[in-house]
Amino acid sequence: MNYWEDIEIGRNFETGEITVTAADIIDFATKFDPQPYHLDPAVAEHSIFGGHCASGWQICALMMRLLVDTMNRDGVRSVGSAEVESLRWHRPVFANDTLNAQICVTGRKPSTDYKQYGLIDCAIEVVNQSGEKVISLTTDMLIEREEEVTDE
Amino acid sequence: MNYWEDIEIGRNFETGEITVTAADIIDFATKFDPQPYHLDPAVAEHSIFGGHCASGWQICALMMRLLVDTMNRDGVRSVGSAEVESLRWHRPVFANDTLNAQICVTGRKPSTDYKQYGLIDCAIEVVNQSGEKVISLTTDMLIEREEEVTDE
Repeated sequence: MNYWEDIEIGRNFETGEITVTAADIIDFATKFDPQPYHLDPAVAEHSIFGGHCASGWQICALMMRLLVDTMNRDGVRSVGSAEVESLRWHRPVFANDTLNAQICVTGRKPSTDYKQYGLIDCAIEVVNQSGEKVISLTTDMLIEREEEVTDE
Repeated sequence: MNYWEDIEIGRNFETGEITVTAADIIDFATKFDPQPYHLDPAVAEHSIFGGHCASGWQICALMMRLLVDTMNRDGVRSVGSAEVESLRWHRPVFANDTLNAQICVTGRKPSTDYKQYGLIDCAIEVVNQSGEKVISLTTDMLIEREEEVTDE
């Protein structure tokens, strides 16, 4: 296990990889973002994106999957985040791109709301198979503590 | 059609509604956010959320669906956004909650990158069936112009 107490500022978590297919892009877009450049590869070729690309929110969802798999691998238990700042979509994610992410711990503090969790601040970058940055964001996450805070 | 030239600061777009089921929550979580409080209603009852709740990124994706349906209804063509600021998850979205959103136009400027699009700044709030705010965020969107900018 990696508890909140174990996670120091400057710690880097490197995720595994995930590949997004044309069918994945169409499935997500059909449910959540039914725009022609996500639904139809032929239309997308002639769009400003220049190819069949994933919804920006699908990229965030794929980032979350990379993050959850990494937390499970490394024994970190989180109950999520309350906020994101500076979410940037730097370039499209195209069908058959393979993504991975880096999570860098930039800050940490006890939670004022929960005795059993502590907060960490994170800067997250997702890159494609060519190492090009596709999204970046900062967030905080509630992480399980080894020892609950006790009242004095 | 509502072109960029037609959309003034202070304009409010009210979306339709969307209901999220337990099956929708489990389907999204299985793909993108496989954590016990999204996958298993019984476990979720005893989590800090107090019930079976959607991934935070699913709420963003549902917001996008409300937004796209509203743009189609009102004849607004967008090629999306490059950034989000101040994304906040205010409270959980539980199974069978019904969501709607308000999009308020807070700024507008020509795009420096594209002659055929203009930018609008938006403040977006998503609320549940009790009128409680579930997420809020600010973003800019590229909106199709009626007339392309011509070089002098």
